[in-house]
Amino acid sequence: MAYRLTVLGCHSATPRLNAQTTAQHLNIREHAFLIDCGEGTQTELKRHKLRSQRINHIFISHLHGDHFFGLMGLISSYHLLDRGKELHLHAPEGIRDILNTTFRHSNTWLSFPLHIHPLRFDASEIVLEDEKVSVRSFPLKHSVPACGFVFRERPHPRKLQVEAVRAHNIPVYAYARLKEGSDWEREDGSLVSNGELTLPGPVARAYAFCSDTAFDESIAPWVEGVDWLYHEATFLESEAHLAKKTRHSTAAQAARLAAMAGAKNLLMGHYSARYKELEAFRQEGMKYFDKVHLAEDGMRIDVY
Amino acid sequence: MAYRLTVLGCHSATPRLNAQTTAQHLNIREHAFLIDCGEGTQTELKRHKLRSQRINHIFISHLHGDHFFGLMGLISSYHLLDRGKELHLHAPEGIRDILNTTFRHSNTWLSFPLHIHPLRFDASEIVLEDEKVSVRSFPLKHSVPACGFVFRERPHPRKLQVEAVRAHNIPVYAYARLKEGSDWEREDGSLVSNGELTLPGPVARAYAFCSDTAFDESIAPWVEGVDWLYHEATFLESEAHLAKKTRHSTAAQAARLAAMAGAKNLLMGHYSARYKELEAFRQEGMKYFDKVHLAEDGMRIDVY
Repeated sequence: MAYRLTVLGCHSATPRLNAQTTAQHLNIREHAFLIDCGEGTQTELKRHKLRSQRINHIFISHLHGDHFFGLMGLISSYHLLDRGKELHLHAPEGIRDILNTTFRHSNTWLSFPLHIHPLRFDASEIVLEDEKVSVRSFPLKHSVPACGFVFRERPHPRKLQVEAVRAHNIPVYAYARLKEGSDWEREDGSLVSNGELTLPGPVARAYAFCSDTAFDESIAPWVEGVDWLYHEATFLESEAHLAKKTRHSTAAQAARLAAMAGAKNLLMGHYSARYKELEAFRQEGMKYFDKVHLAEDGMRIDVY
Repeated sequence: MAYRLTVLGCHSATPRLNAQTTAQHLNIREHAFLIDCGEGTQTELKRHKLRSQRINHIFISHLHGDHFFGLMGLISSYHLLDRGKELHLHAPEGIRDILNTTFRHSNTWLSFPLHIHPLRFDASEIVLEDEKVSVRSFPLKHSVPACGFVFRERPHPRKLQVEAVRAHNIPVYAYARLKEGSDWEREDGSLVSNGELTLPGPVARAYAFCSDTAFDESIAPWVEGVDWLYHEATFLESEAHLAKKTRHSTAAQAARLAAMAGAKNLLMGHYSARYKELEAFRQEGMKYFDKVHLAEDGMRIDVY
């Protein structure tokens, strides 16, 4: 079952030729999520053959232009293409004002229901939960209100051990409860423990997105143990004074956060345009954490 | 002296791979103008090696997204790149509300003076005039208030015929007035006609931009005799019912307007995405007008 991240853009501040601003597409089982939406995101979705109409939830971390200037165009295109099904937007409350103002002046009345779910910045909360996935927001520490998101797959059902189940003559109607972890009660009231009847299902996978933010230890518990952690690394330590001033992180800080959180992999991105060569980000990060990966526009990661 | 049009995007409605929405760059002598600004325009400026910081005047025809969704990003990039010099924006009044709302929520206070000059839709007016060029807006007929623009080079000075000027012993201080077309008065009060002393300067060039609009004869006088007329042709006559419904033009209508205006060349664009092959636009237009050209993204036209 799919759990695939596609990096549509991983650069900061201004879009350039071959350097898109932040946007990511995350496919978890049947869900297609969009995380941030820099200018040009709808074109990047097409470039990477991701069907934009499949997206039902969009998560916007904060209202700096390099994270949402593609949203008006994407929503407008949904409208022009006669989208009917609802779209959920998890974003700072201000997005409502921006979209209403923009569409009012262009005399656009959307063809589909757009539900805006304002993020909160004073606490973490579950912003989406169903039988497949739970998505939690948590506050980041940036120059404007900003949230990170962690996408945790819900536990998979346990796998029946068919021979054991048959040996105990367990009827089919009881299988679903066994897969959920229940023991089996014989007619005489004695129990067969679930561990004899099932094996664990596949491990639930998790991805976390942290951009933009200064280094903040309080993020670590929210992203504990994730398979992949995207954490911004706008600067190198040599420019730590700029990171501090602009409330961004260095490569070293991103790696320290990954280590604190016990993440399995770190994906860095949101590089400042001042750096022509990115290998130094990996080198700096690997002083603190082994599994450092550098995001690139168009990169695909399958989480197992 | 330069008079060059670069088509950054010439497609309608939604940006696609290799199909940018409307934006044009017009270089007239030392002026660099931007006309409309679809999503991704700042990247297209880079692609075509046009320095965005040279642009001092931006003209926005109307507030449909495919004509201005790149504006927030371009202005934001000017700010991030510490632009200091002023920028003039000639656009529908609503743009002020859209920009103010967007930048307020992103906590952005522009580093440079942005002067918004609201367009009027009830009459034509000169929106910019100096010794090089005059720019006039005129109402179009679309589903939201919209303006076209005509960029007329100011007349060049006449050229002195050096031998004739010397033969009449005309002093240097009088040359400027001769170039403006004045006759020369001898000491005895008799006149030497300007035609004996000068030759006409280069012809003043003109370009007109008409998008988006239904066919409207009242446009013709405003764009009379221009060297190049860009007129939208969203549909072919076979879809004339759609053109009427959406207040757009067909290729035939664009060509009829060019003929009525006595334009020297017609440039068509703003094609609907339904047409995979554009040659039919040229064929349809040439029934009414000889010099039909099809706009393409990245096309450059030098006006002589």
